Formats: sequence, C-alpha cells, structure tokens
Amino acid sequence: MKYIGIDLGGTNIKAGIVDDDGTILFKDSIKTDAHRPQDEIIRDMGKLCVDICEKAGIPHEEIESIGVGSPGSCDAENGVLVYANNINFSMAPIRAGIQKVIDKPVYLSNDANCAAVGEYMMNEEKTQNFVAITLGTGIGGGVIVNGKLYIGMNGAGAELGHITLVKDGEPCTCGRNGCWEAYGSVTALIRITKEAIEKNPTSRLAEIAEEHGKVSGRTAFLAAREGDKVGQAMVDEWIENVADGVTSIVNVFQPEVLVIGGAICKEGDFLLNPIIKYVEKYRYSRPPLAQTVVKIAKLGNDAGLIGAAFLGKV
Amino acid sequence: MKYIGIDLGGTNIKAGIVDDDGTILFKDSIKTDAHRPQDEIIRDMGKLCVDICEKAGIPHEEIESIGVGSPGSCDAENGVLVYANNINFSMAPIRAGIQKVIDKPVYLSNDANCAAVGEYMMNEEKTQNFVAITLGTGIGGGVIVNGKLYIGMNGAGAELGHITLVKDGEPCTCGRNGCWEAYGSVTALIRITKEAIEKNPTSRLAEIAEEHGKVSGRTAFLAAREGDKVGQAMVDEWIENVADGVTSIVNVFQPEVLVIGGAICKEGDFLLNPIIKYVEKYRYSRPPLAQTVVKIAKLGNDAGLIGAAFLGKV
Repeated sequence: MKYIGIDLGGTNIKAGIVDDDGTILFKDSIKTDAHRPQDEIIRDMGKLCVDICEKAGIPHEEIESIGVGSPGSCDAENGVLVYANNINFSMAPIRAGIQKVIDKPVYLSNDANCAAVGEYMMNEEKTQNFVAITLGTGIGGGVIVNGKLYIGMNGAGAELGHITLVKDGEPCTCGRNGCWEAYGSVTALIRITKEAIEKNPTSRLAEIAEEHGKVSGRTAFLAAREGDKVGQAMVDEWIENVADGVTSIVNVFQPEVLVIGGAICKEGDFLLNPIIKYVEKYRYSRPPLAQTVVKIAKLGNDAGLIGAAFLGKV
Repeated sequence: MKYIGIDLGGTNIKAGIVDDDGTILFKDSIKTDAHRPQDEIIRDMGKLCVDICEKAGIPHEEIESIGVGSPGSCDAENGVLVYANNINFSMAPIRAGIQKVIDKPVYLSNDANCAAVGEYMMNEEKTQNFVAITLGTGIGGGVIVNGKLYIGMNGAGAELGHITLVKDGEPCTCGRNGCWEAYGSVTALIRITKEAIEKNPTSRLAEIAEEHGKVSGRTAFLAAREGDKVGQAMVDEWIENVADGVTSIVNVFQPEVLVIGGAICKEGDFLLNPIIKYVEKYRYSRPPLAQTVVKIAKLGNDAGLIGAAFLGKV
C-alpha cells in the first residue's frame, strides 16, 4: 500500500506519497500563507493530496491513509489541531477538513511525534521502546512504547523538552523556568554563543560570527573545530546540557534506542560522542541490564513527512 | 481467583493472599535476616507462600499466580533480581527459587512499580495511563501505559526519581548530581530541616526536633502547622521541589491520573494542595486538552503487596 504524509509548517506545506518501505515516491509543496483563515489552509492540504496523486499517476484506491504532522498541540483522537501559535490555528478540524476533499482515514500528530514514528519505522533494529529527540528552536520528543506511539490521555503526548534541568533557571517558552529546552535547544546554544562573543570580542568565535554575518547553532562548532577555546567551551557546555536531559529521558523510559535529530546533528560524532560518554557515566541503569543505544537520527528533513505517512501504522 | 503478593524488604518479608477486588484475605510476615545467602531467603519466600495458604485454609489450586515486589533493579522478564544493595542480592533467581517450593507463575518487579500497579488497579476511574510516585528514602516511580505496566527494554522500568532537577546540584545516590530524588525525597526534606535547625537553633522547628529526639520528615510539617516560619519555609521549599518534578513527569507522560504515595502523604491536603496549584500553573498542556488529576495514593503500606499480587494482571 501507499500512504500520504503531510508536513504542515509555518512557511510551506509539504506532502509526499510513501510506500511501505519508507521510500518517498513523489513529493511536492505549496506555500502555507499562514495569515489565511485556517479552513482555507486545511482545504489546500486536501487539494495537495489530490494533486500529488495526479502528478504521480497514483490512483486514490492505492492510498491507504493520510497523516499530518503539525506544530502545536494536537488532539490525535479527534483529528483536531488544538492550538499552534506559529500558524495561528485554534481548534482546527484537520481530519474533517481534509476528508471533505479526499475521503481517506486521516491521522494527526505533532511534528516531533511524527519524526519519532519515521525514525522508529526506519530503524534497523526492530525495537519495542524507542525515543526520538529533536534539537531545534525547541526540544521536541516522541516516544514509542510497546511498538505504539505514546500520546497520553489527551492525544498531545510526550513533551520531553519540558522537564526541568535547572530549577528556577532561564525562562522557557512554556511559562516555567529552567526547562531542558531552555538549555539544550539550538536557541539556547545561540544564546550562550552570543554571550560568549560579547565577553570575548577578539576570539575566533567572534570572528566567525562576523564572517557569517550572524550567530547560528553552527558558529560555536565551527570555532571549536578550529581549536578556539571560547567556542569549545560553549560547545562543551551546551552538549552537557543536552546530555544531562538525554540521561533523564533514558532513566525514565529505558528505551532500546534513543535517536537525536535536528539540523545540528550534521555535527555528527563531534556532537554524539560526548553525549554517549556522559549518558554511559551517569545513567541509573547499569550492566548486566541491557542499555539504551544513543545515536543520531537518520532521516533528516524527511523524518516528519515519512512519520506522518506512517501514523496509521503505529 | 486469588493471588499471592510478596513484599520483600530489608527487615521483613510480607506475603498476603489477595482476591480480585484487591481485598487482602490473609497476610503474614517473617524476618528477612538479610545477612543470609540469597538462595535461603528466596526459599523462605516460597515457604511463606505455602504457609499462608495453609493458615488461611486456601488450597493451592485457587492461587492463580505469585508476584514479588523487591527493592533494586529487576529483570522482570527472567524473574531475576539483578541487584539490590540494601538486601545484598545479586542476580538472584527469585522466580526459579520460589517455583522450587510452590509451582505457580511468579512475577517480579521493583517495589515502586508494584505500588503503582496496586494504586492503578484500585483506582476508581478506569484509566489507561497512570503514574505513581512514592516519596520516601528516595523517589520511586511506576508508570502504566495503555493499561500495562511500563518496564522498558530491560525490565527495570521507569526511574522517575532520576531526572535532573538542579543541574550539578546535591549528590544523588545514583552517582549523578542534582536528581529530583536528591531534592524531593523525604531524605532531602530531613536534610534541609537539619540545616534550618542549625541556622535557627531557637526556632519552634528546633524545639520540636528536640522534643522528638530526632529530625524526621514530619518535623517541618509539625512546626509549620503550629505557625513556625522556619518550618513553613522548609515545607514550602520541599513541596516546590516535589511539585516541580511532578510537573516534569506530567509533561512527559500526560497521564489521566498521577498519585503520590509514601508515609509523608499522611500530611494530606497540606501537602497536596500546593502541589496541585504548582502543577496547574506550570504544566505544558493547557485546557481544552484534558488535564492530569494529581492526588494522594490510597492504599498506604499495602500498595506494594496488592500490586505485587496483581503483577500478572497488567
């Protein structure tokens, strides 16, 4: 069978047709134009599904289901996007709206959950308990328990970025202070990089930021790779924040596999190895009990789309 | 049917026969004598099962299964207690050892998981996702996901006390610094109470400790109830530590119900109400999404025994 996955973003709506092996057979995108009424955007999501089937020459009968990955809080059971501030949706009837255009089962979950499903389904080892963390503007998380996506009682599911890391620490977007997200997201890395540049205006770190015309998540890594101590210190501090949160999540779920995703993961082993070292040192569970394998996610930008397509399978 | 639950402790081994309603029909206990070889202790657990059946006049055929709640890390799948430092067990074949004495299915899990199962099975509302926290020497946790006890890939399961609360904070028994357990356990309450007494030797708090000849988890609560500001400050600080960790757990699991147990819960609403207020203020998920109900556990000391008896049912 074939499945349509939709990745709803603030700028673009991407949709793809995915087969059982996770291969994207065809994909296309349209502008979200997020200022429009939500019903219009949802209708266009349905139209995009029809459109890609036509362009790919795949008849509707071959499509098993449609899955939507969305920012914000989703009520998965009812297929309603409860709220998402970056696209200004509120109690948006995604399932019902898409089904007006194309009559298929429609599944909905947040984008971090979809990324987790994608990584889980495409993971080499067949596991039952699996966690995916996405490091980006925030920290997203998705959890597979006994082979099923865990969404909790309200369909909204695991908000793994919102565990405390530093009690009463930096303000978090959620309204609490000191959440892991406020220390381990790429936003946090950019914040501490900017602070370090201000304190060390003649460092190589400051030069690199100047050369690129901005500070990004890569800035400190670039400096560290060139041997800059200020950049290295920022990388070390940030990675330890990431690793400490990963350790907490490992202690809570004891999954077979935990994958870390997000564009920053292009840093590869330079990022991963110190995380593994930290987790191995500080996790609660010790051999001979089986231990969680921590690794970099493999699907990159397509994780959300493939996972959305597979929502009906987990 | 009837079920035997065993609560293996450092001082006593308790065993009880429990019916499907969770009523303890008969219970008895023997000394653990923890210095003995583990095989001897396991054999006595089996003998205790035979013994209570005889004393209660219940034939073996009516016993469906036996469940054991144990401290330490359990390999539930293989029925092996991997290690437990307070009773000096290591790779102890609990299932096999008990079955040599009485041939029934034997389930094994750690005591916090058993308490969770007991509270879950006896909870009025029938829920699918349920968390139980036990505040004591440490912080134990057990999680029910989709109606099943969550034990992770290694059978050891949710170590909810070992999420960070204060990065690089107080040393935790697990080897990491700053775990929730190091701030929200009764051990932590006693620690800060002692510190406050040292700083405020003429406070009512100090007097109460003097009168009782020791500092316990109750000391600060007693002082606070009498209007002592020093005692109240310790109660407030500790409750906020508990509540912050509870908020993280609510964000991760979004369970229908989270119960808090342990002897300290005799403090009732004096403990519970500020926790609820904190969680409602700071949790990630907001209405109209369904919200977690936080309440005090109801089974008290019997939770572990009843839960152990019901291990085969979840």
